[in-house]
Amino acid sequence: MSQNPKTTFPITKLLVANRGEIALRIMRSAKEMGIQTVAVYSEADRDALHVRYADEAICIGPAASNQSYLVGENIINACIQTGAQAIHPGYGFLSENASFAQMVANAGLILVGPSAAAMEVMGNKLSAKAAALKYQIPMVPGTEEAVKDVDEAKERAVEVGFPILIKAAAGGGGKGMRIVERVEDFEEQMQLAVSEATSAFGDGAVFIERYVTSPRHIEIQIMGDSHGNIVHLFERECSVQRRHQKVVEEAPSSILTAEIRTKMGQCAVDVARSVNYTGAGTVEFILDENLDFFFLEMNTRLQVEHPVTELITGVDLVKEQIRVAAGERLSFTKEDLKISGHAIELRVYAEDPKNNFLPDIGTLKTYKTPKGNGVRVDDGFEQGMEIPIYYDPMIAKLITYGKDREEAIERMLRAIEEYEITGIETTLGFGKFVMQHQAFKTGNFDTHFVGKYFSPESLKAQDETEALIAAVIAARLFQKEKPVLSVSPTANSSSNWKKNRQKY
Amino acid sequence: MSQNPKTTFPITKLLVANRGEIALRIMRSAKEMGIQTVAVYSEADRDALHVRYADEAICIGPAASNQSYLVGENIINACIQTGAQAIHPGYGFLSENASFAQMVANAGLILVGPSAAAMEVMGNKLSAKAAALKYQIPMVPGTEEAVKDVDEAKERAVEVGFPILIKAAAGGGGKGMRIVERVEDFEEQMQLAVSEATSAFGDGAVFIERYVTSPRHIEIQIMGDSHGNIVHLFERECSVQRRHQKVVEEAPSSILTAEIRTKMGQCAVDVARSVNYTGAGTVEFILDENLDFFFLEMNTRLQVEHPVTELITGVDLVKEQIRVAAGERLSFTKEDLKISGHAIELRVYAEDPKNNFLPDIGTLKTYKTPKGNGVRVDDGFEQGMEIPIYYDPMIAKLITYGKDREEAIERMLRAIEEYEITGIETTLGFGKFVMQHQAFKTGNFDTHFVGKYFSPESLKAQDETEALIAAVIAARLFQKEKPVLSVSPTANSSSNWKKNRQKY
Repeated sequence: MSQNPKTTFPITKLLVANRGEIALRIMRSAKEMGIQTVAVYSEADRDALHVRYADEAICIGPAASNQSYLVGENIINACIQTGAQAIHPGYGFLSENASFAQMVANAGLILVGPSAAAMEVMGNKLSAKAAALKYQIPMVPGTEEAVKDVDEAKERAVEVGFPILIKAAAGGGGKGMRIVERVEDFEEQMQLAVSEATSAFGDGAVFIERYVTSPRHIEIQIMGDSHGNIVHLFERECSVQRRHQKVVEEAPSSILTAEIRTKMGQCAVDVARSVNYTGAGTVEFILDENLDFFFLEMNTRLQVEHPVTELITGVDLVKEQIRVAAGERLSFTKEDLKISGHAIELRVYAEDPKNNFLPDIGTLKTYKTPKGNGVRVDDGFEQGMEIPIYYDPMIAKLITYGKDREEAIERMLRAIEEYEITGIETTLGFGKFVMQHQAFKTGNFDTHFVGKYFSPESLKAQDETEALIAAVIAARLFQKEKPVLSVSPTANSSSNWKKNRQKY
Repeated sequence: MSQNPKTTFPITKLLVANRGEIALRIMRSAKEMGIQTVAVYSEADRDALHVRYADEAICIGPAASNQSYLVGENIINACIQTGAQAIHPGYGFLSENASFAQMVANAGLILVGPSAAAMEVMGNKLSAKAAALKYQIPMVPGTEEAVKDVDEAKERAVEVGFPILIKAAAGGGGKGMRIVERVEDFEEQMQLAVSEATSAFGDGAVFIERYVTSPRHIEIQIMGDSHGNIVHLFERECSVQRRHQKVVEEAPSSILTAEIRTKMGQCAVDVARSVNYTGAGTVEFILDENLDFFFLEMNTRLQVEHPVTELITGVDLVKEQIRVAAGERLSFTKEDLKISGHAIELRVYAEDPKNNFLPDIGTLKTYKTPKGNGVRVDDGFEQGMEIPIYYDPMIAKLITYGKDREEAIERMLRAIEEYEITGIETTLGFGKFVMQHQAFKTGNFDTHFVGKYFSPESLKAQDETEALIAAVIAARLFQKEKPVLSVSPTANSSSNWKKNRQKY
């Protein structure tokens, strides 16, 4: 135990520049560290839980984000007014905004996050790629410059390996785009692509790129301090997506080998090192069917799905963020970390999976969260509250942990059953569909999971089966009405019994 | 992954012969294993959560336990009526009743627990001691037979070592009992004890026993299967007790060394082996100030405090109990197990610590449980429910987990703050007192903790400090009413702002 580090710790009051579950989640860690918390809120959130939870709360504007949670000046003013030394931006809103990070630094405040410079580089795909290339990070193979010549293009395509993707250099929206499976088809497809590109954009130049048929989204959590230490905390797999947004995440990935994990982890650390990264960050990769991986982008903030990493490593990422923002060294080395068990997160959104996952905003008429061993619910609502229409419709993150993937899935199914939400549609039933699907259970899935397997009918069938089971159970429950008599009741219990059994 | 073991698993329906949090906790594990559950309930519990949670539920009699939860015949009848193959007795009620265990076996049903024979031996202090002695398990040193002769007694006292306890052989209630600190005082105290014993019981014979000045209660969790494997799952420390009953438990103990842990673990396995133990059991020891330990007794069931072991080992003890009861081998070996992190449990009782911990039964007017990373609440109530007067007044077990003891304590304090219970008094405030007490924080405490440090005034002082803090916070919260203006509001936001700020 260190000698009361809190007395010299430079952050005694933290402002959380966010709302909902992530604001609460950050405040919980701050409270455990003995740090006072300041909530900011829009007019729509004045009765929100994060406002109630904080030691102090300040209104920063009307409901619309661009008039409240996105107004950096208001947040910095709130800091000054309350004497908070630091700001935790959470995710979304201003969390990856380099100019906000610079404003915070200019105001002499601490941002719990990386430097403005690191955000700047990683916030742009081209500069991020350029930074990553310094460390030979694998990128999706392809031509670096546009080609026009068929022979030259074919040569490069063979080098890249089939299937390949031909993309119009000037293109967009799928125009002039061709997937080519075999070398024999290349010339014909190239010609078609070029002529399509020429007629659409007046420019026939194309790029050649490896086509990843069955991509999996794997990301590496990293943490860096201001003393030059950068460590990775293994991967998360986030391949189950709807509308190109994650909905089910897990750690570790069911497909990664120890060897690939080590390689990918090293690449992630290198990407972070290319911008002298401090704090929590995530390096995203695409993994193909040969288990080759390619750099996608780096997110310079805490991710929504960070809890699965916390559960398999035992590291409280928010506490670690606050400590390194205060100038401390990382509390662990690479050697201290190991993967224990398996964790899965389901994002519980107020949206209707039967209606193309459209938001279904309303009041939480019933809202009861699951409990018990291996279940964590990070949420920002209580029964009777309304989901505001102004923000992301996420109600909660339901996270389960087990000794292995099978147990984490079983717990998730049990927890979904226990979760009671009425008044709005949610992704809970969709989560059940995923957990019970053979492709997910066997780990044999990719980012096409929802498109390939899910349809509104899947849930309707599930609903019907449940109605049937409910009917069977209702019939069985009839037994409740018939008490089991004691074989040898005492005289007294017998009389009590008779007196009371009429009530049944 | 095994090849769908559920199809051949002999338990497809489990009856839980208990109520409250433990009934729910058992059903959760069963549900995760795909096993149907049957609840039994007394008339007082007809609206209880465990009844709602189970697939089927059967009333087994009036409120009084001896007419319902303690009537073995009713429980066996409920099994037969519902087709449940197995019974989980939980803790308390029939869980350590050897004749019930025999009845269950005779009925051709599976008891999730040890054999009747093992319960029989361990249920009696003398036979338990005799069984343990076969394996040279350390017992509190002393005379095995009563002595009358002062010289002989003194000789034994010197062998045992001071301080010693002189106890009347025929005694009880502290009569004829003397603590002797130094050998010089022995003769005088012995004579006093003998004459007191003679006048009180007509028999002057006394026992000599080592007096453990500063005892710590440490227990070892063991699991055995029907194939002869017995493994221990490390220790729990349960030294913080009120009215000789545990109220705060933790794993691992803050005082045990790896060496003592290994020795104590081996002793616990030996005690279990002496009765061919199967299932979950706990071997209790007393640890003295020299870190010498002595066998106290064995509990032949799941303990209330089992979750702390689950959290530091990742083993679901209830699932393991069900599996070994079904004849499977233990799913782990000693080598598979290691201690990860630290867990603390606080029993949340409906009792008033300011009034000698007397039960304070009533309705849970407000009941909101804490959430977030590292917090587990095992409970059996919801807001608006009444705590029945007929049973143990435990409302919940609040369990926190952290990477080390310090973090587990910080989480417990944070979780206690978050827990909202009104309508009755609880042990939450007492838990806060314990977590903040220097003796507990430094691990320098024993079973006299409550007697030594706690008084109703401690909580009153705490209440007053909290009232003061609340007043300060209330004053600060006034800031809520004063919105922070944007430095550069857009025309639109500005007008919205003015329109809305009147509301504040």
